[in-house]
Amino acid sequence: MNSSEKIYSGKTKDLYALENGNVLLVFKDDVTGADGVIDPGANTVIGQVEGKGRKSLAMTDYFFKRLHAADVPTHLVNLDLEKGTMEVRRAEPLGKDINGTGGFEFVCRTRPWGSFIRRYQQYIRDTEQKFDNLVEITVKDDERGDPLINDDTIVALGLLSPEHLAKAKDITRNVCRIVEADLRGLGLTLIDMKIEIGLIDGEVVVIDEISADAMRVMDEAGKVLEHAKVYEKLIG
Amino acid sequence: MNSSEKIYSGKTKDLYALENGNVLLVFKDDVTGADGVIDPGANTVIGQVEGKGRKSLAMTDYFFKRLHAADVPTHLVNLDLEKGTMEVRRAEPLGKDINGTGGFEFVCRTRPWGSFIRRYQQYIRDTEQKFDNLVEITVKDDERGDPLINDDTIVALGLLSPEHLAKAKDITRNVCRIVEADLRGLGLTLIDMKIEIGLIDGEVVVIDEISADAMRVMDEAGKVLEHAKVYEKLIG
Repeated sequence: MNSSEKIYSGKTKDLYALENGNVLLVFKDDVTGADGVIDPGANTVIGQVEGKGRKSLAMTDYFFKRLHAADVPTHLVNLDLEKGTMEVRRAEPLGKDINGTGGFEFVCRTRPWGSFIRRYQQYIRDTEQKFDNLVEITVKDDERGDPLINDDTIVALGLLSPEHLAKAKDITRNVCRIVEADLRGLGLTLIDMKIEIGLIDGEVVVIDEISADAMRVMDEAGKVLEHAKVYEKLIG
Repeated sequence: MNSSEKIYSGKTKDLYALENGNVLLVFKDDVTGADGVIDPGANTVIGQVEGKGRKSLAMTDYFFKRLHAADVPTHLVNLDLEKGTMEVRRAEPLGKDINGTGGFEFVCRTRPWGSFIRRYQQYIRDTEQKFDNLVEITVKDDERGDPLINDDTIVALGLLSPEHLAKAKDITRNVCRIVEADLRGLGLTLIDMKIEIGLIDGEVVVIDEISADAMRVMDEAGKVLEHAKVYEKLIG
């Protein structure tokens, strides 16, 4: 690969600066979790699962194609499933902090679950209630438990223009609808998912990946599937 | 007083149902805090301060008159500074939970401070930066540390219509501007404050109280004033 400088080593991916100005994402087999249990939401790498990186990449490939078909832009230039790498345009992550790191996570929910139920339990009469792709935006900040941030604050802190914020939320709902529809076709239900969004030349685009690691999916019996199962169902 | 039934005993006020359908608020001298230090944001009553209830009431009287002059509606019917009581129309607090208790707090900030800085420190380059009355909405829930809730969630959970939510946020900003202007006239700066809002016959109105307990104020030297000082400056 014509990569030169490693610019970032993340929990599940390494990033290299390419000579053409793009960035190469190298998907790793590392999995995060706590107490020996795999949890993609956790912040500690607890081991490796053979082939996991390539599966995340294959699923990203699958969904990015679906997004492009629906005119939802992403940062993808090309990818190599064999090598487990993806070349992307260099984007500025929305919600980047004053040190140039971090960013927002755009969470999309089709029903109350997990932390949402814990936070708002006094309002939830019916955990079966459906949301029309409810968006929450959180700040990547392991130490503070990824605090929620509201739209007014995002604008007041000058982190996003109202137009870019509205666009990013639209994109989040669109991605959520596409993933939800595809899973439904397999008899599965999307509960919630999260994506990252960035700016490239002023355009709001989906960045990072769309993988089972960043979504909660249940089967027809209402059982939440392990991520390995979701990969199996979607990409074999 | 023609009160009959005590319907609620709060940390700083008791509520009685009146025969005419209204509610009587009886302001108490109890103060909340932790480790012997008075903190109106705390959830434990640590003692009493002689005359404190009447001061909160007098300040509420002062600001409610200012709100009415600015066409911002409140639940006030009449008040008795001697007795330390306020008669109000019966309102449905915005953000009331499924048990009919709790509610939202509408927080208004003119600059980053306190929990806001802790949550979003990675975005705050300049703690002197000004906000044009930034609104955050939190859920009264001592156990969970009053979680933040975003506009989309409030609507998705059916807690408020988009129209009532917009109106409530407008009212919050208006109240904040009025309080800010009055304090500025005394050489003081409002940092942040919170109010409660309710519905009476479909109308969005300010409820509860507007007292120094629910605001953070600093003097010209940038020192945050004790609440007793704020009372002294505003109502003598």
